[in-house]
Amino acid sequence: MVKVAVLGYGTVGSGVVEVLEENKEKINLRANEEIEVKYILDLRDFPGDPHEKKVVHDVEMILNDPEIRVICETMGGLEPAYTFSRRALLAGKSVCTSNKELVAAHGPELLRLAKENHCNYLFEASVGGGIPIIRPMNYSLTAEEIDSIIGILNGTTNYILTRMDKEGADFEEVLKEAQEKGYAEKNPEADVEGYDACRKIAILSSLMTGKYVNYQDIYTEGITKITAGDFCYARAMDKSIKLLGMSKETPEGYMAMVSPCLIDKEHPLYSVSGVFNAVFVHGNMLGNSMYYGRGAGKLPTASAVVSDVVDCARHLGKTVTCIWEEAGVKLMDFERSKRRFFVRAKMEGLDRAKELFSVSEIMEVIDGEFGFITEIMTEAEFKEKADAFPEMISRIRVEE
Amino acid sequence: MVKVAVLGYGTVGSGVVEVLEENKEKINLRANEEIEVKYILDLRDFPGDPHEKKVVHDVEMILNDPEIRVICETMGGLEPAYTFSRRALLAGKSVCTSNKELVAAHGPELLRLAKENHCNYLFEASVGGGIPIIRPMNYSLTAEEIDSIIGILNGTTNYILTRMDKEGADFEEVLKEAQEKGYAEKNPEADVEGYDACRKIAILSSLMTGKYVNYQDIYTEGITKITAGDFCYARAMDKSIKLLGMSKETPEGYMAMVSPCLIDKEHPLYSVSGVFNAVFVHGNMLGNSMYYGRGAGKLPTASAVVSDVVDCARHLGKTVTCIWEEAGVKLMDFERSKRRFFVRAKMEGLDRAKELFSVSEIMEVIDGEFGFITEIMTEAEFKEKADAFPEMISRIRVEE
Repeated sequence: MVKVAVLGYGTVGSGVVEVLEENKEKINLRANEEIEVKYILDLRDFPGDPHEKKVVHDVEMILNDPEIRVICETMGGLEPAYTFSRRALLAGKSVCTSNKELVAAHGPELLRLAKENHCNYLFEASVGGGIPIIRPMNYSLTAEEIDSIIGILNGTTNYILTRMDKEGADFEEVLKEAQEKGYAEKNPEADVEGYDACRKIAILSSLMTGKYVNYQDIYTEGITKITAGDFCYARAMDKSIKLLGMSKETPEGYMAMVSPCLIDKEHPLYSVSGVFNAVFVHGNMLGNSMYYGRGAGKLPTASAVVSDVVDCARHLGKTVTCIWEEAGVKLMDFERSKRRFFVRAKMEGLDRAKELFSVSEIMEVIDGEFGFITEIMTEAEFKEKADAFPEMISRIRVEE
Repeated sequence: MVKVAVLGYGTVGSGVVEVLEENKEKINLRANEEIEVKYILDLRDFPGDPHEKKVVHDVEMILNDPEIRVICETMGGLEPAYTFSRRALLAGKSVCTSNKELVAAHGPELLRLAKENHCNYLFEASVGGGIPIIRPMNYSLTAEEIDSIIGILNGTTNYILTRMDKEGADFEEVLKEAQEKGYAEKNPEADVEGYDACRKIAILSSLMTGKYVNYQDIYTEGITKITAGDFCYARAMDKSIKLLGMSKETPEGYMAMVSPCLIDKEHPLYSVSGVFNAVFVHGNMLGNSMYYGRGAGKLPTASAVVSDVVDCARHLGKTVTCIWEEAGVKLMDFERSKRRFFVRAKMEGLDRAKELFSVSEIMEVIDGEFGFITEIMTEAEFKEKADAFPEMISRIRVEE
C-alpha cells in the first residue's frame, strides 16, 4: 500500500484524485502496489465532495505522517509549493508535480534533495501535460546524443494561431473568443507572451544538456504581433506560423529561444493543430522523433502526475536516474545566432530592400506591399539592417 | 562495469556496437555503469574489423561467462534466437532484442523467465525501431486505460504508398525502384503482405491488454492490390491510403487487424510519410497521443537496443514491470467487426450499387467508373453485398 497526499484540490489536483479512482485497478496492477489518497491539502473546504473527509488545511499533518510516501504537488506557483516540496523530500517522501514554474526555477536542487533522501522528484506533467516526454527523454533516449529539440509547447497559443490560419482572423479577435470559451485565461500574458513555453523549453533544454538552463536567459517573444496578413504570406509559401520553443547545439554555441516561426508544410510540426502540442527531438543515432498529444487539460495533466506516482511506487527507496546538474549552461549570445527571416515591407521600400538584403525573389500577396525571405544571417545583422529599413512592416523568423 | 555480448554481427548487431562506441560517455553516465562489449557471436569471422578479437563462434562461451550480464539478441528469426534467449534468461542474464518474430511468438514466456531469474527481457527495438513506444507504453501510460492503438508500423510499405500517392505511380513500379534503392527486400513478402506489421501490432496489442494476442489470429491484408487509381479517389476525398495496424476495444469485442485504410487529411497519421512510422494511442484520460520516428534502419534500431541495455544496467538484479501474461486474449470474429468501405465500380453497376448499398453520393474521378463510401456495416455484410456486385473494381477500408 502506498499512501499519497495531494497538495491543492484545484483543476489538476482534483483530476489526480479522479484518475486514481477511475483507473484504480489498472494503476494498482502496474504499480504493483495499492495506491490510496490519504490527504488532500487545500485552504478551502469541499462540503458534499466524496473526498471531503480527506481534506486538511495544515501541511504539517501530511509532512509528519510517516505513512505518506508520495506527494502530488498540484498547487502551481513558487511558494508555498517550493517550501512544501523541499520539506517533503527532506522527509524522504517522493514528490510528483505539474508545476513548471517550480521545476524550471529549482528543479536541480529538488532532484538533488530527492537523491540524498532516497526518494524521487518527478515532473512528467510539467511539460506537455498529455505528452509523455520527460520519461522518454530520461528512460528511452538514453543511447542518444540529442542535439535539437523543437516544441509546440503551449496549447492556448497553438489554438489561437490555428484559428488565425484557418479563418484569416486577427489575433485580438481570436483571443477574445478563446477567453470566452475558456481556452485562454482572462490574463493571457503567460501564454501569449511565451512565458509558459519558455519554462517548458528551459526544462527540456536542461534534460538535453544534463545541466541547468535558466529560463531567464532564454530569448522569448510571444504571438501578439502576428497578424492575419502574416498568415496570407505563410499560406502563399505553403508554410504556417507556430510558436516554437527551441533548443539547439549549433556550431556557434548552445542556442535556446521561444519565438513565432514560419515552418514548412513538410515539417511534422506543421500539422499539429489546435490545443495539441508536440515535441520534435533530433538525436545523432535515431534521427528525428516526435511526441504528440494534448498540451494541457485537467485529465491529461492528471494522468501524467499519476504516471509519476506509479513510477515512485515501483522505485520505493530508490532514486530513478535524471541527469540535471545544478551547474548552469552558458547559452550563446542570442544576437549571434543565425537564421533566415521573412520580411514584409511597403512597396516603396523595394529598392532599399534590394540594396540592404540582396533580395532575389519577392512575393506580392497584399496590395501595396511585398514580402521576401532573407539569406541566413545573425540576429544582430538582421537588426542592423531592419533599423535602416523604415518601410519594414513586420518580420518573422524562419525555421528550416 | 556491465559486460555485454552481442548475438549476430549483422546490420543491427554492428549498429549496437557502433552506438555504444560513438555515444559511450553519455551512455555510461546515464547507465551509471561502464558498459563494455566483451563478445560478438557470429558464424563468420571479421578480419580487419576493429572488434575482430571479440568475435566468437560458440554461444557456450557467452552463456557460461558469469561476467556477462546483458545479451543483445540481434539475430532475428525464431531459432536459434529462441533457445539462446531462454538459456541466457535461465542463467540470469538480461536479454535486449530487436527480434519481433520471437517477441510476438514467445514474448510472455521469455518475460516470465526473466522475472523468475531476476533479470530483464526488453524489446524496445522490436516495434518501430526509432520510435520509443514500448517503454512509453510500460512506463509512461501507466495511469491510462488504453482502448485503441493505430500504427503505421512498416517503413517499406509506407515508403511505397507515399511514392504512389505523390507520383501517381503504380505499386509494381514503385516496388521495383524501392528494391533497387535497398528500401525493399528482394523478397518483399513480409513487408508488402503486412506480415511484419502484423507481428508489431500483435506486440502492441499484448501490451495494451496485458495478455497474449497471437499474431496468427490477426486479420492481415497487404498493399499489393492498391493501385494508382485508388489514390486518385483518395486525393479527391482529401484522404490518403496507409497500411495500418490496428487494435481496438469495440462494443462488439476486441478487434485487431492489419489492412490498407483510407485516412483523412485531418488525422495525425495522414502526414507520416516515407520511411517514417508512427503509433497513435488513445487512452481514457489522456485522449490521443502519437509517437513518431524512423520505423527501421541500422542506427535507429541499434539505439533502441542500447536504450534497453541502459535500462538493464539501471535495474541489475531487478525485473522492471511489463504486464504481458501468457493467457491469451480472445479476439472478436473479424467478420463481425464494423466499418465503412470505399468502393470503386464500373459505371454500369450504378443501379445495382444504389440498390445494394443505398448509395446517396457518388464520385466520378476516372472515366467509366464511380466510387462511393458505404454506410457502417460488418465485414460479413459487406462481403455478402460485394459478392452480389460483379461490377465492383476494388474496395478499401475507411478509418474514421
